[in-house]
Amino acid sequence: MLDALPLPHPFECRAGSATLRRATGDDLDVLIALLSDDPISASRGDVASAADRETYATALREVLDEPSNDLLVVELDGAVVGTLQLTSIPGMARRGARRLLVEAVRVSSSIRSSGIGSAVMRWVSDAAAPALGAALVQLTSDAARTDAHRFYERLGYAGSHVGFKYSIPR
Amino acid sequence: MLDALPLPHPFECRAGSATLRRATGDDLDVLIALLSDDPISASRGDVASAADRETYATALREVLDEPSNDLLVVELDGAVVGTLQLTSIPGMARRGARRLLVEAVRVSSSIRSSGIGSAVMRWVSDAAAPALGAALVQLTSDAARTDAHRFYERLGYAGSHVGFKYSIPR
Repeated sequence: MLDALPLPHPFECRAGSATLRRATGDDLDVLIALLSDDPISASRGDVASAADRETYATALREVLDEPSNDLLVVELDGAVVGTLQLTSIPGMARRGARRLLVEAVRVSSSIRSSGIGSAVMRWVSDAAAPALGAALVQLTSDAARTDAHRFYERLGYAGSHVGFKYSIPR
Repeated sequence: MLDALPLPHPFECRAGSATLRRATGDDLDVLIALLSDDPISASRGDVASAADRETYATALREVLDEPSNDLLVVELDGAVVGTLQLTSIPGMARRGARRLLVEAVRVSSSIRSSGIGSAVMRWVSDAAAPALGAALVQLTSDAARTDAHRFYERLGYAGSHVGFKYSIPR
């Protein structure tokens, strides 16, 4: 986990009073469900299969255990409705800039366009990045997610790069 | 540093016998020079200014000290001619896949097209990723680097994503 993050973070949005907090092992099943709730994730194998539960549990423990990573969830009316992962990465480029990498942003399909995503991403740039000493926030978004691209552009992100992926043959 | 990386890694390329090894504090000045040797990096402020040397030194120490990160250099005939940074990132998505993020790949302009870049990137996917338990290698490349895009595509990378960046106002 990233100890320096100012959590929990309560905030208001059109859907009501929400809280951004660190995930725990108890969030495992709702996190698996959020991943499978997304068609692009589902096409990559995130289909909430019971056979994968132990693999997801290990991954959740690793994210929470490693000091450069954290996994957060958004709670609304006692239910987890969103998640994102943060990774703090030191580096030489851009005059020694630390980067904050955002991965696996998901908001429950039942609650999209409620302002939760923007509130969380504003917290990332306005609160999380300064707390970690990061000069840059970065993320990649599948080329098919055109709605998400407009969302990030509205928040001031520049889609200046091409994101390349290479799957290691199993 | 990433203890599990199988380093040093000697290899042959058209330019001769090279070695991929972990960077040390003694590589600071050549690393700063490699960054400024690149026009896109230079346009972002990496101009090898003496005023930035201490900032770069801190960044180098942080990369080498953090257990999820490593900074590597390529040596050819006793000179450092290339560098790249690796970050090992656990995650829930893609059925709990660990990712290996590649950042800041630079090869000296004097030695491009010698096969050093491909040899290093093949080592990343064939040796580094398996040693770290990563199922995916990912990187972003500035949209202006069209030669680099062809290079990654030839290595089997899919440019499937848009890379978004947001600079934190200072």
